[in-house]
Amino acid sequence: MERNSFKNISPLDHRYSMREEEFQEYTYYFSEEATIRYQLMVELAVVKALNLRGVCSGEVVEEVEKAVEEIDVEEVYREELKTRHNIRALVNVIRSKVSDRAKPYIHLSLTSYDIVDTANFLRFKEAAKKSLIPHLEELLREWLRIVEEEKETIQIGRTHGQYAEPITFGLTMAYFASRLDERINVLERAAGNLRGKIAGAVGAYNASSIFFADPDEFEKEVLAELGLKPAPLSTQIVAPEYMTDFVHVLISIFGVLANFSDDMRHLQRSEIAEVGEYFAPDQVGSSTMPHKRNPINYENVKSMWKEFMPRMITSYQDQISEHQRDLTNSASGRFIPEIAVGLLLAVNRLKRVSSRMHVNRVKMKENFNRSSDMIIAEPLYIILAAKGHPDAHEYVRKLTLKSEEEGKNLSELIKNDELLKPYLNKLDERQREILYNPEKYTGIAGKRCEEIVNRIKKERGFNE
Amino acid sequence: MERNSFKNISPLDHRYSMREEEFQEYTYYFSEEATIRYQLMVELAVVKALNLRGVCSGEVVEEVEKAVEEIDVEEVYREELKTRHNIRALVNVIRSKVSDRAKPYIHLSLTSYDIVDTANFLRFKEAAKKSLIPHLEELLREWLRIVEEEKETIQIGRTHGQYAEPITFGLTMAYFASRLDERINVLERAAGNLRGKIAGAVGAYNASSIFFADPDEFEKEVLAELGLKPAPLSTQIVAPEYMTDFVHVLISIFGVLANFSDDMRHLQRSEIAEVGEYFAPDQVGSSTMPHKRNPINYENVKSMWKEFMPRMITSYQDQISEHQRDLTNSASGRFIPEIAVGLLLAVNRLKRVSSRMHVNRVKMKENFNRSSDMIIAEPLYIILAAKGHPDAHEYVRKLTLKSEEEGKNLSELIKNDELLKPYLNKLDERQREILYNPEKYTGIAGKRCEEIVNRIKKERGFNE
Amino acid sequence: MERNSFKNISPLDHRYSMREEEFQEYTYYFSEEATIRYQLMVELAVVKALNLRGVCSGEVVEEVEKAVEEIDVEEVYREELKTRHNIRALVNVIRSKVSDRAKPYIHLSLTSYDIVDTANFLRFKEAAKKSLIPHLEELLREWLRIVEEEKETIQIGRTHGQYAEPITFGLTMAYFASRLDERINVLERAAGNLRGKIAGAVGAYNASSIFFADPDEFEKEVLAELGLKPAPLSTQIVAPEYMTDFVHVLISIFGVLANFSDDMRHLQRSEIAEVGEYFAPDQVGSSTMPHKRNPINYENVKSMWKEFMPRMITSYQDQISEHQRDLTNSASGRFIPEIAVGLLLAVNRLKRVSSRMHVNRVKMKENFNRSSDMIIAEPLYIILAAKGHPDAHEYVRKLTLKSEEEGKNLSELIKNDELLKPYLNKLDERQREILYNPEKYTGIAGKRCEEIVNRIKKERGFNE
Amino acid sequence: MERNSFKNISPLDHRYSMREEEFQEYTYYFSEEATIRYQLMVELAVVKALNLRGVCSGEVVEEVEKAVEEIDVEEVYREELKTRHNIRALVNVIRSKVSDRAKPYIHLSLTSYDIVDTANFLRFKEAAKKSLIPHLEELLREWLRIVEEEKETIQIGRTHGQYAEPITFGLTMAYFASRLDERINVLERAAGNLRGKIAGAVGAYNASSIFFADPDEFEKEVLAELGLKPAPLSTQIVAPEYMTDFVHVLISIFGVLANFSDDMRHLQRSEIAEVGEYFAPDQVGSSTMPHKRNPINYENVKSMWKEFMPRMITSYQDQISEHQRDLTNSASGRFIPEIAVGLLLAVNRLKRVSSRMHVNRVKMKENFNRSSDMIIAEPLYIILAAKGHPDAHEYVRKLTLKSEEEGKNLSELIKNDELLKPYLNKLDERQREILYNPEKYTGIAGKRCEEIVNRIKKERGFNE
Repeated sequence: MERNSFKNISPLDHRYSMREEEFQEYTYYFSEEATIRYQLMVELAVVKALNLRGVCSGEVVEEVEKAVEEIDVEEVYREELKTRHNIRALVNVIRSKVSDRAKPYIHLSLTSYDIVDTANFLRFKEAAKKSLIPHLEELLREWLRIVEEEKETIQIGRTHGQYAEPITFGLTMAYFASRLDERINVLERAAGNLRGKIAGAVGAYNASSIFFADPDEFEKEVLAELGLKPAPLSTQIVAPEYMTDFVHVLISIFGVLANFSDDMRHLQRSEIAEVGEYFAPDQVGSSTMPHKRNPINYENVKSMWKEFMPRMITSYQDQISEHQRDLTNSASGRFIPEIAVGLLLAVNRLKRVSSRMHVNRVKMKENFNRSSDMIIAEPLYIILAAKGHPDAHEYVRKLTLKSEEEGKNLSELIKNDELLKPYLNKLDERQREILYNPEKYTGIAGKRCEEIVNRIKKERGFNE
Repeated sequence: MERNSFKNISPLDHRYSMREEEFQEYTYYFSEEATIRYQLMVELAVVKALNLRGVCSGEVVEEVEKAVEEIDVEEVYREELKTRHNIRALVNVIRSKVSDRAKPYIHLSLTSYDIVDTANFLRFKEAAKKSLIPHLEELLREWLRIVEEEKETIQIGRTHGQYAEPITFGLTMAYFASRLDERINVLERAAGNLRGKIAGAVGAYNASSIFFADPDEFEKEVLAELGLKPAPLSTQIVAPEYMTDFVHVLISIFGVLANFSDDMRHLQRSEIAEVGEYFAPDQVGSSTMPHKRNPINYENVKSMWKEFMPRMITSYQDQISEHQRDLTNSASGRFIPEIAVGLLLAVNRLKRVSSRMHVNRVKMKENFNRSSDMIIAEPLYIILAAKGHPDAHEYVRKLTLKSEEEGKNLSELIKNDELLKPYLNKLDERQREILYNPEKYTGIAGKRCEEIVNRIKKERGFNE
Repeated sequence: MERNSFKNISPLDHRYSMREEEFQEYTYYFSEEATIRYQLMVELAVVKALNLRGVCSGEVVEEVEKAVEEIDVEEVYREELKTRHNIRALVNVIRSKVSDRAKPYIHLSLTSYDIVDTANFLRFKEAAKKSLIPHLEELLREWLRIVEEEKETIQIGRTHGQYAEPITFGLTMAYFASRLDERINVLERAAGNLRGKIAGAVGAYNASSIFFADPDEFEKEVLAELGLKPAPLSTQIVAPEYMTDFVHVLISIFGVLANFSDDMRHLQRSEIAEVGEYFAPDQVGSSTMPHKRNPINYENVKSMWKEFMPRMITSYQDQISEHQRDLTNSASGRFIPEIAVGLLLAVNRLKRVSSRMHVNRVKMKENFNRSSDMIIAEPLYIILAAKGHPDAHEYVRKLTLKSEEEGKNLSELIKNDELLKPYLNKLDERQREILYNPEKYTGIAGKRCEEIVNRIKKERGFNE
Repeated sequence: MERNSFKNISPLDHRYSMREEEFQEYTYYFSEEATIRYQLMVELAVVKALNLRGVCSGEVVEEVEKAVEEIDVEEVYREELKTRHNIRALVNVIRSKVSDRAKPYIHLSLTSYDIVDTANFLRFKEAAKKSLIPHLEELLREWLRIVEEEKETIQIGRTHGQYAEPITFGLTMAYFASRLDERINVLERAAGNLRGKIAGAVGAYNASSIFFADPDEFEKEVLAELGLKPAPLSTQIVAPEYMTDFVHVLISIFGVLANFSDDMRHLQRSEIAEVGEYFAPDQVGSSTMPHKRNPINYENVKSMWKEFMPRMITSYQDQISEHQRDLTNSASGRFIPEIAVGLLLAVNRLKRVSSRMHVNRVKMKENFNRSSDMIIAEPLYIILAAKGHPDAHEYVRKLTLKSEEEGKNLSELIKNDELLKPYLNKLDERQREILYNPEKYTGIAGKRCEEIVNRIKKERGFNE
């Protein structure tokens, strides 16, 4: 059914599907066409398994293989207008394309949800492996590149939006890289754990046990054709928790991207200006303020997270299905692909933006310098405490207040403080260096950056 | 941009947009085409207001009127590829269609969100009035029809899924009609309260005050062209709460539909069977169980509610926008039309199902009869209490236990209970009638049905 | 039951209930003690209404009045250990304190939820009027005070975290004051719309119709004793939407506070420093960084919003109750008082912080000055456009790029631009002033501040 | 601070904490007292690690050990009134209890969140191991017991609330047992993956690197004292995802319990009556309907799920913390223990109810019998299809319609259908048996029950 896409309702189907190549990939896994394609794959897998058991011939498999390739989603929908049942329609269409000899083996002993759930879980498993994870890894590579490049770039660390202690911008990025890396691992696990079922209308293998003494073995054989394992026990549907976990991981990955985007937005504030989005020469920042350079990509990712994050509530509600199932997870389940596409849009956007991120080292140094006098409050208090000062924190806190009130540098006040002299005389060289050169007070930031980069690259084979 | 709709991601844009006439209506208010159409209306309204103030001529208005009619959403999108700013693109396209004389008046003194927010609020206001409310009222009519027809149909009331006291099925329906009626009123209020703004980039009328001493009056004039009022104080955007309230009302209406659907699903259970969905002669209930008659429409509505209800969280998050605004409500705001369409789909589905609802009075009477003996426990206890029995509730509770243990009718036990006789002798006729004819124990159910129907019909002018 | 409050689970019952006076107020409306107190009020109201109808004597009313005053929540809970039913326990305790003559009139013709729902709605209605709204108005007063004081304090307006156009800090605050004012109005309406019910076990007035021909009139009489109106139609429970709306308003008010707190947090950033929380002389900002001044109160309010906002989902789910009701809204409903207390904690915290807000006008001017050269891009473009420049926005956009690239002031570039001269010569005085004195480019910010303050003060009688 | 618990706000701190022994266990892990106790454990672990490195003496460790044991939560809170910083208060209190010699080693090189996060993660890890998992396993045992007892008890399987195909009640229960078992495994993994951090104020080990060349090794040593591993990279806080995952697992377990409770509620409906909650002899079902037996425990669990499930939104929001952190996850994080306690309350409630579940086999057989005629539609269609009938599903569907219309048994219609005879003659014995004895049509339900029970018991060592 052709339709002008600006007549579509979902922004996923108009505004956010303008990049044609990207959208073809999403469509491959997440459109209605994909849904039907995967369902046909499961119907075929059953026939193959029947053949392996000698129930039907190789010719039947070939007939079905050919039929399945020919089928068009519109045919199925036209048939559904009559049956008002989507899987019955699918079965009718396959049957209409094979010989009478093959007909009996189509959908033999199956219930709709043997097809629907298995196809859906398979689709998400493959999409994770072939689309989500590769894109996430490309984003991770970009971030690791920045970690390496900026591992020694001094930046003032901020807590509560206030200057805290110095780090490097590499470390800032390493934190996000490390979290993303961990989430990709969790996604691999959750995707690998998606299951299928061929257990019939209520999960007792009622129908398949008419033909097989070991219908649960038959289930394994069908699913093995598709690279899936059965759930330990199904009703009409696969136990929902495998999908609940999968959606949770998608949402939690989105959370990492949202956190990253928020931070970059703030680092791009007029007053901070430590990073910038790339801006095309023709790009307009504001319809009325020609000078504006807005962090629109980071804002978009944050906004998409706000849209998709709450949908976890739908997944939690879909854990509840009455008795051997009700259908109240059906429509809601059809929207899960949107979450994956929303995430992919954000990942691809951040890949583009990260690959051209403008890191303003000069501004980072400037901001650091503004704070550097106060920074030494921490090492001073700690060194004093370690050297036996009985009340170091309180003493230093009062010095900082004095510094503010009198408008004097903290470092000056320290040098001229007679009470501190006995302690300061005991400092070793490293401690002295930190106290008088706050830019040395970055702990082991650089070393940590290297470790993170090396470990992740090695584990993921990024160097090859 | 033509696209096969089965390649769309959102089920709203494939599966749930199969009914062509319905979908054209949704598209009219909720597609990207609609977004652009409403934005053009606001741009035009500004030029009209300028003309009323004598700033530009009537010819300019005519030029812009003509330009606005001609513009196609694809043109705007093509221009946005260059500007990467949607409203600048819109303005450029209008400007390209008018004479140099008219050009300066396009978007004069406006910021993007003067257009975006005003257009959006206007769109929802009109959609509520012309689409949402009329459809909701049609559903309400169907329900009121059933209330009238079934106002005396006895049904056993259920609390906790347990037989409680008798009502009529009309009263069951009247409860939903009354709640829907109340929600429509609230929707009218919320839609009527949607506001616009023409207050410039940061809400201080900076730009418009270059031209007018009373830019806030000019704002009123522009909005009056559109039938809107300004918000009391805007920044770059209209204060979000008007939309937050509006979305809340949509979600809370959906909740009433979900509650109704859940109840009808349960009344359709095999064991209860008091109501039924209409089932087409060719319709298939299950791909494997040919005898099934499933409440798929009610299940669908419940499922859609699960999908859309959590999106309120997005609206609450969009109340927060930094300083004079950030853009993190932009993408998320583009998804709000989906909620309206989701609701309309549910309303239209329930209209169809309600118009052909099968009410099984025989089964309702049967279920009532099964409970009727126990039902009298309540009136008995209350009458005893009123007649001075010192411990009526406890006494009756024990009688019901005895009835269960000994398998005897409660009414029998009562008749033969010597201790009760003195109290029962004092009953008036009405009380005696209730105690021995539990089907009379429906309070004022019938009268309430009539009152509800009459009041709502009158208030909404349904009789005319 | 006495218990060490540090053994409590909820932070509302340990950490956030340290301020004794505040907590006593919350306890008065929102503790379990309050729940029972309000339920007793409803039981008493029924007896009073019975007396007005002449069913029972004035002495019975007095007995019950006295009993109700004496009852202690622990007594009720002890009785519930036996009955395992909370309202039966309540009734038993009242009955145990009155004469046999009065006993029959206690709870006569009522079902538990006549008491529970009515009491609960009454409690929230009164709490809104006597606690929530007064506290919100006190916060509003503080904000209006700041609006007045800072109505002319120049501040750079920010969109996307980027310098946009100038406003005044008064206008920043007026936006929040205006939103809060509007929300208080909505709260008043929602609280005033909370209903009660005395319609019996399934809403058909089954029991009360044994005694009265007009049981719905009797319901009105009981509720009138409490200052409530009945819902148009109840089942065992009041239709949930009145409470859904009420909770929504609480959450949406919380959203305004969260937005305010977020903005103040950011304005307190080290680089911006335009406002500051008051800091006590002994207060410690960080356990390890003695120099830190963190916006902990604003952070706390944002955090509390994150905790309570999602609970709206619970309210939406509680719209669904099967048939004449199930009990799955019972436990969840008991948590609603937490939302009110969470909101009150945030309001009271912001009252304290706002009353001592440090507004740094010097820093605001500094930040404004940094942006003032760029600011004129907007008025320049608009004036050019108005004066007939055919492509003003694009021309100015390129000038801003040139200014950046060549490191020259935009105002200088303008002055020396030959192509602009013909347009600039046409400026009137006000336009010229704005172009060369960007601090004049605040539109009608000051006037708007005054209007907002005057209107709200008048409407709320704040001057009296 | 002693307080009457009926003055508490949270139902967790009044109504739901009445069972004293249970509540003591929750308090042990989840009260404010527990928070402080775990924080003290971390402070002590640091001193121990310092001692292992030879930085301080064993006597210092002993002093701190003793101090930590003596400290009372009220002392800490009193100190916080002065410092307005909770961890500084904690440190001051420890310091006040040790000699000047030991003072410098308290909190040496730490930031508050080294303590707060590590303590919190440790607390949840231990609570999972010692409280949550053991209770969940006890519930699992109860369910497995029922699976075994009812593995052959015939029950009609229900999809869409409609009779579908037969199962056994054991299989119904096995599905929940299998899901709960899987969730416990996931909980073990998530709890085992909770991490700690000793990486200083911004995660760069700034302070600890003053003393140690290998501060990351020192971090490992401290955490090893507590049985924790460090996160790969921290800022001021541990990366949030470990806790996000943990909360997700708690919520998803709650979902399984809610699904179970919903099903049991429905099986307890008056019309179905297949299971029942135990009812105490004195228990009152309704304040006005003495005969009611309500599924109040199942309703309570569902209701608690509605309360706690949405709080996942809070956890997702807490994934976002600006830069090296903001404090907006602090208050919200304090409410996480409530989720654990809410879950424990539900688990303990279901343990009690499950241990006394009344399974009504007679009623199950009755319900099955009512459906048994229609049930054979599925095996008939499947057998016909397998035996080469070209249009089996459609043929049988029409037979079921005929059966309804003519009021004849489906089995009768089959026997008398001439067109079916050739197919039916080909049936083998097992197929014939199923077709004429629908109660044999339970597939491999019994065998699956046994397998599930045996596998879980073995894996969890339940037999020992």
